[in-house]
Amino acid sequence: MIDDTHDPSLQSWVESANPAGADFPLQNLPFGRFRQDGRADWRIGVAIGEQVLGLRQAGLAHTDDMRHFLGLAPPARRELRRAISHGLRRGSPREASLRQALLPQAGVQMGLPCEIGNFTDFYSGIHHARAVGTLFRPGEPLLPNYKWLPQAYHGRASTIGASPSRFHRPQGQQRGAGATRPVLGPSTRLDYELEVGFVVGRASTQGEPVSIDHAEDHLFGVVLLNDWSARDIQAWEAQPLGPFASKNFASTVSPWIVTMEALAPFRRPFGRPAGDPEPLPYLDSPANRAQGAIDITLQAWLQTAAMREAGLAAQRLSESNLTDAYWSAAQLVAHHTVNGCSLCSGDLLGSGTMSGPTPEQAGSLLELTQGGRTTLALSSGEARGFLQDGDTVVLRGLCSRPGWRQIGLGECRGTVLPARDAGGGLAQRGAVAS
Amino acid sequence: MIDDTHDPSLQSWVESANPAGADFPLQNLPFGRFRQDGRADWRIGVAIGEQVLGLRQAGLAHTDDMRHFLGLAPPARRELRRAISHGLRRGSPREASLRQALLPQAGVQMGLPCEIGNFTDFYSGIHHARAVGTLFRPGEPLLPNYKWLPQAYHGRASTIGASPSRFHRPQGQQRGAGATRPVLGPSTRLDYELEVGFVVGRASTQGEPVSIDHAEDHLFGVVLLNDWSARDIQAWEAQPLGPFASKNFASTVSPWIVTMEALAPFRRPFGRPAGDPEPLPYLDSPANRAQGAIDITLQAWLQTAAMREAGLAAQRLSESNLTDAYWSAAQLVAHHTVNGCSLCSGDLLGSGTMSGPTPEQAGSLLELTQGGRTTLALSSGEARGFLQDGDTVVLRGLCSRPGWRQIGLGECRGTVLPARDAGGGLAQRGAVAS
Repeated sequence: MIDDTHDPSLQSWVESANPAGADFPLQNLPFGRFRQDGRADWRIGVAIGEQVLGLRQAGLAHTDDMRHFLGLAPPARRELRRAISHGLRRGSPREASLRQALLPQAGVQMGLPCEIGNFTDFYSGIHHARAVGTLFRPGEPLLPNYKWLPQAYHGRASTIGASPSRFHRPQGQQRGAGATRPVLGPSTRLDYELEVGFVVGRASTQGEPVSIDHAEDHLFGVVLLNDWSARDIQAWEAQPLGPFASKNFASTVSPWIVTMEALAPFRRPFGRPAGDPEPLPYLDSPANRAQGAIDITLQAWLQTAAMREAGLAAQRLSESNLTDAYWSAAQLVAHHTVNGCSLCSGDLLGSGTMSGPTPEQAGSLLELTQGGRTTLALSSGEARGFLQDGDTVVLRGLCSRPGWRQIGLGECRGTVLPARDAGGGLAQRGAVAS
Repeated sequence: MIDDTHDPSLQSWVESANPAGADFPLQNLPFGRFRQDGRADWRIGVAIGEQVLGLRQAGLAHTDDMRHFLGLAPPARRELRRAISHGLRRGSPREASLRQALLPQAGVQMGLPCEIGNFTDFYSGIHHARAVGTLFRPGEPLLPNYKWLPQAYHGRASTIGASPSRFHRPQGQQRGAGATRPVLGPSTRLDYELEVGFVVGRASTQGEPVSIDHAEDHLFGVVLLNDWSARDIQAWEAQPLGPFASKNFASTVSPWIVTMEALAPFRRPFGRPAGDPEPLPYLDSPANRAQGAIDITLQAWLQTAAMREAGLAAQRLSESNLTDAYWSAAQLVAHHTVNGCSLCSGDLLGSGTMSGPTPEQAGSLLELTQGGRTTLALSSGEARGFLQDGDTVVLRGLCSRPGWRQIGLGECRGTVLPARDAGGGLAQRGAVAS
C-alpha cells in the first residue's frame, strides 16, 4: 500500500539519507538490532542514511524486543512507519529529541535482525534450478514437480550469522571423480549463493493453512541471504535426503530488514511463461498475479585477499533480480502452510539462489564456472574457480524504479577463513583410533 | 559410567516405582517439564513410579529452566542423579520433605521436555533404509554413500509436540499413479515412524568439530520420536531436496528424557557386518566400538477408534531395537559437527526409523504394507493400510538386561484428527481465484 511515506520528494534532516543512491533514505526505514557495547542488550533501530535511530530511545516504541515489531498487524506497522517517517523529515518538530537517539552506524555492532527460529530454503530461482539440474541431470534439468510446487528444504537456523561474518572453510566427506572411497578434508569447492530471505512477521496457527491472499500479512520484510555451499560435500551427500553438511556450517544474512511496506513501490505483475501449467488454486489468486513479484536487483561482489592488499575494489561477479523467481513470496507461504505447518515470528524463508536467464547472471560460482570447469578472471590477475581462503563475498540489493526513490538492502558480507582442523585435531583423532 | 544409582536392588519409598516392569523405577529418573495449571510456568520434574518429583520444590535444584540441566557437565549430572536417587530411596531421611514436592503424573500436564531449537533427523536404521530403498529404487536400495556417512536432513523444530498429541491429517500436493498433474488433497497415505530422539545437552562451539570420543558428552538423553509422514506428499515432493511438507506438519516426542546415565547398563559393543567398509577415522574409535550401541527395545502400537469403542486394547504393530542402527549416537554427533556446525542445548537428533531385519519388525506402515500393497489385520476386524482418522499410535521403549533393573521411556502417543480444510476454506479459496 502506497502512502505519504513513499513520496520520492521527502528529505530528512539526517543529511546522509538524502544523496541519490543512498541505501537508507527516508523512504526505506529498515529495522535491525544494534548495540554499542559487545556485552550490552540488543536495541531496535531503524537505519536512516549512515545513522541508526534507536526506536525506544527516540520514544517511538516501548520495547527493544524485535518480536514485538514482528508481531504487529500490518495497519500497526504502517502507523509506526508513518510516525518514524514524520519524525525524521526535514522540518520535523521532533528533530531535537530524535537526534539524541541517533548513532552513527559505523560506531555500533549489528546483530541478527531477529532470533531466527526456523530456516526454510526454497528453490524458486528457475534459472538456477535449470542450470544446476543441467550439471547433475543433463537429460532432465527440471524435475516434473518443479512447476507445480515450490521445492524447499529445511536449513539449519542456529548457524545463521549476521553480516559481516567470518567462518572457517568447512571440512567434510567428499569423493573425488573416479574414486571408490570418500575422504575427509577441507572443501575445495566452496561457493556462495545469492538469495533473498523473507522474514516472517506474525505467526500462523498450527493446523491452519494460510490462504494466498493473506500470505503476505505474515511477512515482515526481506534481507539478503548468502547460503554458503560446499559443492564437493554436497555432491556426495545430497541423495536421497537433500543438502545437509554441505550447507549447515554457516549462512549469512544482512542486518537490516527492509519492510514489505518499503517495497510497495517496487511490486510487479507476476506470471508464468506461456505454456507453463497454471498453478493449483491454493497457489493462485488475482492479487498474486496483479503484484506478486518484487523488483530487487541483486548483486554478488568478490574481493580476494590479493585484491585487498593491492587496494583493488571488490569486483562484481553477477547481477540478477528477485523477479527471476518462479514462485512469489505469497506462494511460498501458502505452500509452506497448506499442510498445517505453522510459521513463527522470525522464521526465515530463503528464495533460493537467484540467477538471471543468461549465464553471466548466475548467482553462484557453480554456475558461473560451469561446475568448476572454467575460471573467472579477476582484476588482480587471479583466476577463480571456487572460493579461496581470504575471499570476501558481498551481496547487495537495490530497488529502483522511475518516479520513485531508490532504496537498498545494505550489504551481506562474509569472509572465508582457513579450515580449522586440517591436519590438526582430527589428524590426532585418527591417530588415537588406529 | 555405572555407579550405585544403577544398583538393581534399590527400592524407593514411592511404592509405584518398585513393581517389576514399571517404566520409572529408582534406577531411571528421567527429566521432564510439567505444570498443574495450563497457564502456569513449566517446572522441572523427575519421574518416579507414577509420580513426578518437582526438583526445585524438593530443594534439589535452584531453577525451573531446563537449559540449566541440559548445560551441566557429565560429572555435575551424575552428582545430581545421585542426590535424587538417595533422596528417593527407601529409608531416606529426606522422605518427608521430598514427599511435599511429589505430584501424581495423572494430575499434571507434561510439555515438551525442553525447547527444541533445531531438529536433525538421521537415517541410521539400515533395515528401514534398505526396505524403503527397495520400494523406490529396486536396483539400488542403498545409495553408495549410505555406509560412509550418516545420512540426515533438517526437520522442522517448531511443529514438534509433546505426547499426547493430536493433529489434523495434512493436505498437500500429490500425484496419483499414472496421473500427469498433481492435485491438492488430504493425505491418504499417512504413516508413523518409530524413532529415538537424542537430546543435545551441552552445546558445542561453532567452527569446532566434536571428536567422536567427546561426542556423547554433548548428549543429555533420549526420548521416543514419532516422525509422522505423508507418503503420497513425500513421493511427489522428495526429489531433489528431500522431504519437506510430507513431514513438517507434526512430529511427536515423549515427555521424559531418559538420561545417558540411566542408559549406562544397556550399552553394547558396536560394530559392522564383515565386509562393510571401515568408518573413516573421524567416525571411529575404540571407545565407540566398545560400547557405542544402546539396547532399547522399541515398539509401535495402534488403537483405532473402533477398537476404543469396542473396548479393545491397542495392538502391537512391530518391535525393533535401537541396536538396529547402523550409526551410533557418537557418530551422529561427530558427523554433524565435523564441518563446524554447532549443536545447541535442546537440539533433537532423530535416529531415523528403526526397523529390525525381518519384515514384521518394520517401524513404519510403508514397510509393513509393502508400500500400501497389503493391509494389516486388526483385532477389531478392520484392515489397515495407512492411518485412518481417529487412529492412535503409541510408541514405547524399554531397556532390559539380565542382572539389571528394567527401565522404560514412557510412551509417545499421537492421534490423527480429520483433515481440517477438506472442501472448506481452501475450496472457497479456489472459487475466489477462478
